[in-house]
Amino acid sequence: MLINELIIKKRDGNALSDIEIKHIITLYTKGELEDYQMSALLMAIYFKGMTDKETNALTQAMLNSGETIDFSYLKGKKIDKHSTGGVGDKVSLILAPIMASLNIYNPMIAGRGLGHTGGTLDKLEAIPGFNINLSMEEFKKNVAEIGASIIGQSKEIAPADKKLYALRDVTGTVASMPLITASIMSKKLAEGIDGLVMDIKVGDGAFMKNKMDARKLAKSIINTGKLAKKNVVVMLTDMEQALGLKIGNWLEIEECLDSLQGRGPADLLEITHGLAALMILLSGKEKDLKKAYDLSVKSISSGQAYLKFLEMAKAQGAELEYLKNPQNMKKATYKIEFFAPKNAYLKISSALKLGQLNVLIGGGRLKISDRIDPIVGIEIFHKVGDKIKKGEKIASVFYNLEELKSEINDRLKNCFEFSSKIVRKRKLILEVLK
Amino acid sequence: MLINELIIKKRDGNALSDIEIKHIITLYTKGELEDYQMSALLMAIYFKGMTDKETNALTQAMLNSGETIDFSYLKGKKIDKHSTGGVGDKVSLILAPIMASLNIYNPMIAGRGLGHTGGTLDKLEAIPGFNINLSMEEFKKNVAEIGASIIGQSKEIAPADKKLYALRDVTGTVASMPLITASIMSKKLAEGIDGLVMDIKVGDGAFMKNKMDARKLAKSIINTGKLAKKNVVVMLTDMEQALGLKIGNWLEIEECLDSLQGRGPADLLEITHGLAALMILLSGKEKDLKKAYDLSVKSISSGQAYLKFLEMAKAQGAELEYLKNPQNMKKATYKIEFFAPKNAYLKISSALKLGQLNVLIGGGRLKISDRIDPIVGIEIFHKVGDKIKKGEKIASVFYNLEELKSEINDRLKNCFEFSSKIVRKRKLILEVLK
Repeated sequence: MLINELIIKKRDGNALSDIEIKHIITLYTKGELEDYQMSALLMAIYFKGMTDKETNALTQAMLNSGETIDFSYLKGKKIDKHSTGGVGDKVSLILAPIMASLNIYNPMIAGRGLGHTGGTLDKLEAIPGFNINLSMEEFKKNVAEIGASIIGQSKEIAPADKKLYALRDVTGTVASMPLITASIMSKKLAEGIDGLVMDIKVGDGAFMKNKMDARKLAKSIINTGKLAKKNVVVMLTDMEQALGLKIGNWLEIEECLDSLQGRGPADLLEITHGLAALMILLSGKEKDLKKAYDLSVKSISSGQAYLKFLEMAKAQGAELEYLKNPQNMKKATYKIEFFAPKNAYLKISSALKLGQLNVLIGGGRLKISDRIDPIVGIEIFHKVGDKIKKGEKIASVFYNLEELKSEINDRLKNCFEFSSKIVRKRKLILEVLK
Repeated sequence: MLINELIIKKRDGNALSDIEIKHIITLYTKGELEDYQMSALLMAIYFKGMTDKETNALTQAMLNSGETIDFSYLKGKKIDKHSTGGVGDKVSLILAPIMASLNIYNPMIAGRGLGHTGGTLDKLEAIPGFNINLSMEEFKKNVAEIGASIIGQSKEIAPADKKLYALRDVTGTVASMPLITASIMSKKLAEGIDGLVMDIKVGDGAFMKNKMDARKLAKSIINTGKLAKKNVVVMLTDMEQALGLKIGNWLEIEECLDSLQGRGPADLLEITHGLAALMILLSGKEKDLKKAYDLSVKSISSGQAYLKFLEMAKAQGAELEYLKNPQNMKKATYKIEFFAPKNAYLKISSALKLGQLNVLIGGGRLKISDRIDPIVGIEIFHKVGDKIKKGEKIASVFYNLEELKSEINDRLKNCFEFSSKIVRKRKLILEVLK
């Protein structure tokens, strides 16, 4: 099996066999297939796609390139949620303790932020002491005892994915449905879960810019899930504007703490409970969607989810003082505020531009080696459709580098557009597919 | 200028600017652009193509990655011929001395065979002592004094092409019109020539399988020539059957010697004189095609071309004894013959299959590091359209590895097809474009 011939086979639009795909991934993981051949193959896959059968074979090969976690000894169901990434998307941090409080196991291997989208691990690391690099044994113990744990992708889990993702990132081959599918699913299947709820973000702040592409990815993920005999439900949610009212790693932790204590913004809670309800259905704990939703709401109102969050954080080394008294956290040095220029309706609050602004001030990274400033961020005070009076505060930017002042000022006003006509509120949950 | 962004630009079907292309090739030549990014870009070019302007920029960047030869001090015109490669194509070895005998300079940087197609350098190296690795100074001296010299691509000439070709060869990105064009033209323009005649082979034994693709490549090469202010003429010639009657490195030298002494097969001479006539027109030595053709014919009948061949070979270290007495060359150990199974017309004599058979017995290579056995080869006794009697000899295979016997037998008969109905002779020269 000459690799060059397999590249040509794919280049010419033919499907690779399961054995061929396994061969490719095995060699690549062992370092016996050159990056330059893999990147040519990835570009051919970008153009020619993969059948569901190929995508499944790729997922399985990547999954089997490393260890998989065995949770079969736990009695309850293991359900996870994954998001394709957005701006202000801190849902995982609220969902995991909700699930744990309902005795549904939620083992979660999460990712870092790249570009304008944030990452769950970066948010957790904004909590002093929080350790996302647990050993497999610690992770399994925490999931078993607490019900939830969130860690990074260790070198044992799907190493082929780790290597492939780094290569895709620098060769223009990230935006390929089968490659995205296999990357997500190989990691999620390694978690030893029974079911998965996917949150596919749609809009200018998301990876999928329109519903058509989002549906394609949904279909690809659902089919791969089916072939792996896992229940997968997909929710398409809006990412034209940021989720919640805070963007930036520690600011988002603050918003999670508020949400877990019943003071969360409506949009964030609607998405969180919507996803939670689907996870509860998948777990079999409840069969009625409305009742499942109520279970999630109650988990917060009873304080159970908040306690579970503290328990999970403590088990991963967090200094609880900051979680109990977030006002004690160090603040960013500078603040810039932006006020409404006229009486109007908020028409656009660009998730993409706000996410990029957050990267500019150090809250995100352009390349994987960039360092993050956990304290900086953006607070917004309105959602699209809100009626706003002239001079009302629209957003605040908290930052530490004085020299950025004028660029922040320039960019900040460009994040928003106003209209004198009534603007409809954006629909948050667009579709559910399974 | 981030390379990843340039890959995405091409992937999305946009044209790269001259500066971007130059930047890419400069970095790549210096080893500052990774192979894995280049191969992804090459695959994107494979799918999205390049405009004539891009192809020209690529050609110039590759040309300028190394040295160019300055022959401007020579009074006469410098004209070269290049073939896209075929089976039994030994035309260059006859053309170079013809040109030299007519006082037209023919500096030729030639290539090796790969896959089922042969290479001029491999044929020359079948001559004991022949050195294709001359220094630039020796090459220039031989061209100036003798009129012709054939050498390999030294590291000084278009190093970017050498590096790129090696990468394309293992990443499924050879078959791309702009990449083929830039590869050929960067080397040919480095020769310091005034004009170029391209022989684009068409058919199952050629790189271009049909006239449509061949015309596209012709157009691409002619346009690149124009932008570089060089006269380029393209001839499309048939490669459904092998050229001449001998395939294999030393066997082809024998056939060249025969041809230069007036005993060559008709098809080989027709193509040779046809290409020579175009080269003579380009040189300005003659304006009438028929008269130019006659000049080439006369160069052989007068014995001048043969003497020039010996002169060129001697200057490159060849042991003339074997050229003057080719019967003294060592013979292959084994021979298998194939005879006509019935009275019939020869319908197919597959250049591709004969070329592949020649590779099997060691006369060609599958990868650049394979070693060649110069003595092995195939002799054929008929051309498509010939009327053949049952039991007449169709082909002989000369080989050195006894264990190949049964596979040779199996493959040999599959190279040929017969018909009871009259079969038309194949047209050799299909089109001339400029």
